[in-house]
Amino acid sequence: MDKRIAEWMAAVEKEMPVKRWKHTLGVVDSAKQLAERYGADPAKAEIAAIFHDVTKYWPVDRMRAAIEEEGAANDVLAHDKELWHAFAGAYITRRDYGIEDDDILNAVRYHTSGREGMSLLEKVVCLADYIEPGRDFPGVAEMRRLAETSLEQALLAGFDGTIRFLLEKGKRIYPLTIVTRNELLLNVNKGG
Amino acid sequence: MDKRIAEWMAAVEKEMPVKRWKHTLGVVDSAKQLAERYGADPAKAEIAAIFHDVTKYWPVDRMRAAIEEEGAANDVLAHDKELWHAFAGAYITRRDYGIEDDDILNAVRYHTSGREGMSLLEKVVCLADYIEPGRDFPGVAEMRRLAETSLEQALLAGFDGTIRFLLEKGKRIYPLTIVTRNELLLNVNKGG
Repeated sequence: MDKRIAEWMAAVEKEMPVKRWKHTLGVVDSAKQLAERYGADPAKAEIAAIFHDVTKYWPVDRMRAAIEEEGAANDVLAHDKELWHAFAGAYITRRDYGIEDDDILNAVRYHTSGREGMSLLEKVVCLADYIEPGRDFPGVAEMRRLAETSLEQALLAGFDGTIRFLLEKGKRIYPLTIVTRNELLLNVNKGG
Repeated sequence: MDKRIAEWMAAVEKEMPVKRWKHTLGVVDSAKQLAERYGADPAKAEIAAIFHDVTKYWPVDRMRAAIEEEGAANDVLAHDKELWHAFAGAYITRRDYGIEDDDILNAVRYHTSGREGMSLLEKVVCLADYIEPGRDFPGVAEMRRLAETSLEQALLAGFDGTIRFLLEKGKRIYPLTIVTRNELLLNVNKGG
């Protein structure tokens, strides 16, 4: 285990309310389990999970400034603010905590939206965020069941649910999420 | 009225079964009504409606060949075949029937998917295709009601329904449809 884990956890805990920190610990556990189940690196899964919501409780302007400072994903600023913490979080994980591993950073960056061609680690962290034990939403039990046997079927169910939720709420849908969901659907139908 | 209308109608009727021709006549009526209601050109709406499904019953390979021959929208070939007839149809309307008006051709091209920045005519034809009197699907009554007062609210309800339908059926969602729906949502929320 990386010696900095305890130090990182203490720092990230200070960035969020107790409830969100409990969620983060749930994502850490679930991500490590899923990594072991599906052959991703559990140590990387743990680090990505620790940082995935690091900027979630930042003021909107601070998230925007981080995204603009990095300059890598400015299109997300035209989309729902719910997406911003993932992009800002990846940048801050590198800038302020010195994590340089691209797979870890991408697992933070795409944990909410997904993206085309997600790595195994990205899928693991994204799914862990949906199904960690503290989550309670319609469909989570089915997702947990699917997660026993298929990372991609479980994730597809998660994105389908998210899209339905956004339709219900009359909120915009990030096109990247659609592209991700379409790709998962193709893979699942191929038996992949 | 364009003197070629009767000739075009006779030609297009031969391209499809009776049921689809009845649908086309319904779209013609609804498109003309909506054009009058919302200030689009009823003569253009009529022509676009006549041609909107002209290649709907073509064999898939013939649709593909038309799209490839035009070379304008090859990305659609990687998406659901249900979308192809609109793109092939726009090209054939120009190539085989000599229609050169871009607004009419775009109303054919985007009648299924929508697109960002749809013109008034494009919206009219797209909505007419959803709500012509022969249509019967969950939500069509609500769409007809909305169409009395808001072209965009009615279209938004249509696209939302289409997205839900594709989720239910486990079919891919064309990202252009999401972009269109997001834009309509912003306009509707602005009171546009």
